[in-house]
Amino acid sequence: MTGGELEPPHRLRPIRALPGGEAVEIIDQRRLPHELRLARLDGVEAVVTAIRDMWVRGAPLIGATAAFGVALQARADAGDAAMAAATDRLQASRPTAVNLAWALQRMARVWAALAPADRAAATWAEAEAIAREDLAVNAAIGRNGLPILQALAARRAAVGGGALQVLTHCNAGWLATVGWGTATAPIYQAHAAGVPLHVWVDETRPRNQGASLTAWELGQAGVPHTVVADNAGGHLMQHRQVDLVIVGCDRVTARGDVCNKIGTYLKALAARDNGVPFYVAMPTSTLDLSLADGLAEIPIEERSAREVTHVSGRDASGSVLEVQLTPDGSAAANPAFDVTPARLVTGLITERGLVPAQEAALRRLMEPMPR
Amino acid sequence: MTGGELEPPHRLRPIRALPGGEAVEIIDQRRLPHELRLARLDGVEAVVTAIRDMWVRGAPLIGATAAFGVALQARADAGDAAMAAATDRLQASRPTAVNLAWALQRMARVWAALAPADRAAATWAEAEAIAREDLAVNAAIGRNGLPILQALAARRAAVGGGALQVLTHCNAGWLATVGWGTATAPIYQAHAAGVPLHVWVDETRPRNQGASLTAWELGQAGVPHTVVADNAGGHLMQHRQVDLVIVGCDRVTARGDVCNKIGTYLKALAARDNGVPFYVAMPTSTLDLSLADGLAEIPIEERSAREVTHVSGRDASGSVLEVQLTPDGSAAANPAFDVTPARLVTGLITERGLVPAQEAALRRLMEPMPR
Repeated sequence: MTGGELEPPHRLRPIRALPGGEAVEIIDQRRLPHELRLARLDGVEAVVTAIRDMWVRGAPLIGATAAFGVALQARADAGDAAMAAATDRLQASRPTAVNLAWALQRMARVWAALAPADRAAATWAEAEAIAREDLAVNAAIGRNGLPILQALAARRAAVGGGALQVLTHCNAGWLATVGWGTATAPIYQAHAAGVPLHVWVDETRPRNQGASLTAWELGQAGVPHTVVADNAGGHLMQHRQVDLVIVGCDRVTARGDVCNKIGTYLKALAARDNGVPFYVAMPTSTLDLSLADGLAEIPIEERSAREVTHVSGRDASGSVLEVQLTPDGSAAANPAFDVTPARLVTGLITERGLVPAQEAALRRLMEPMPR
Repeated sequence: MTGGELEPPHRLRPIRALPGGEAVEIIDQRRLPHELRLARLDGVEAVVTAIRDMWVRGAPLIGATAAFGVALQARADAGDAAMAAATDRLQASRPTAVNLAWALQRMARVWAALAPADRAAATWAEAEAIAREDLAVNAAIGRNGLPILQALAARRAAVGGGALQVLTHCNAGWLATVGWGTATAPIYQAHAAGVPLHVWVDETRPRNQGASLTAWELGQAGVPHTVVADNAGGHLMQHRQVDLVIVGCDRVTARGDVCNKIGTYLKALAARDNGVPFYVAMPTSTLDLSLADGLAEIPIEERSAREVTHVSGRDASGSVLEVQLTPDGSAAANPAFDVTPARLVTGLITERGLVPAQEAALRRLMEPMPR
């Protein structure tokens, strides 16, 4: 793998280690897509704020940002008490984020084994390694997905159908990772390889990650795209306007059931009904072999009703503000994820290759790789 | 049928003929759900504005409102030239509305056969007849749907499951008709009959008719309900939280394919996948026996992209305003309807009874009724 292959096809990064190890620079995602604001995080305090208040979001990005938080703490005061306190505060910033706990544990294994004087350099290097590994995993997902897109593009071209038509849901893009994204990695690689393509971007109510984040990042990368209401995807598939669906995932069970953003299941049903391939981009870190039946075993987070009743956007004067959509007195419910049964999944695109959503294949995938 | 059965279970009406025939009073639906504003329409000019600017919407309500517009014109100047000009202006106010053309033709048959002096009383009576017939059709749909809801409620009660859980999409409610609504008519009748029930209201992006209109009118009628993102319905069905889906329709083909608000098809797929009955409330006026294959033959209106990129709501100060959701430079597409194939439809609830979505049954339904 050359260094060049690790470079995502756009100049912006959701997180960037500044030279000298004094700070990291992030995109403050709260203002997207209406304003691009970069923020410099120069200590654990700033990192806690950025994670807690969702300046950064997306499991891989949260993990990497927290790792740099530990490294910045080591630069300021690398004593045991200070390092432990910083770790606790970072953990508490988004308590349910699995990647956050994972990154902090990995960082602790590094600093706890060293004398305080050696911790600053070692933790910075480890945080950089975490970020680099995320880039490498996503680049590999991109490479492994690329042939799928190329084949479907060729099929469309053979009938004079124009650009490859991809549909995606939510934001499994570079803004949720250190770069490339998961579901978007094959799209970016295909675009870079000259495959003519167009992406249907599901708005992804209620948090609108598609309309705000995926549309914005595809635009930054120059990828042709069109935002549609979540309701539109089935109609587009009925009319042969979608060649494949590709989404990310929050958790995948041993049987291949896929937990992802609410609404994913409806698109998988429509894909099946219309013979459209339905792919899931899955870093193997997302596979949970301890679970079998996703519907029965994965608890679904119920988020605030306010995400349904209110929406934020930019008014005519350029201010970003929140408006209420529903009548006073009407309740709202907000399940954040759903489970797509394995039977509806064409394949899982991982950094180790393409794998069917079947238990035997998934268990084989996780066996130690031959050297 | 007693008069009482024609009274919808709430005091408000989307249109009401004022005593003396001088004007009609409508709900200005543009401000809903944030403000209830009644408007008095005292001439054809006001009626044209109300239809064109969508103070009233919904095919049956547009037809009835236009009919009263003709009657108001007859009161002011019932000469041939004035009546024809008013009819033309009303027709041009929403040129693609089928019910509008139908109502104007029916009104013209009345006034054209009479001397100008007799037109005011006759047209007013005809407009009232159109409104009364719409109420009667919807009341009959409610009566014909009621046993379905009662049976499913009994099934849920038998397992101690609490209230009947209904899911609906868009607004096929009383605000779209002269009263009762179509999909909501069985819900209101079941509620009035003491069936414990709760309605999941799809937000219905991009125009949010569910979150704004259906939620509001269910609230006015005291029916328990919860607004959900369009993405949530599949998840709710997977978890046995929906006993039936009931929606309206814009057009139904001879084979029983159902054209309705975009996103209906996705809910029908989820219903089928989870064994949930999927019903369509269909006034027989919506059945188009000249069409067979809905997917191939029904052209789908592509509406303004701005409905996707912008949304209107109420800000913290109480003002209703529009905000932009998407990045500058991202395109949006907005197909307004989709087609649910007959194979996914459990049954059509019409004013003449429950009928399967099958051609032979639909053609039989439209044969003259025995007297």
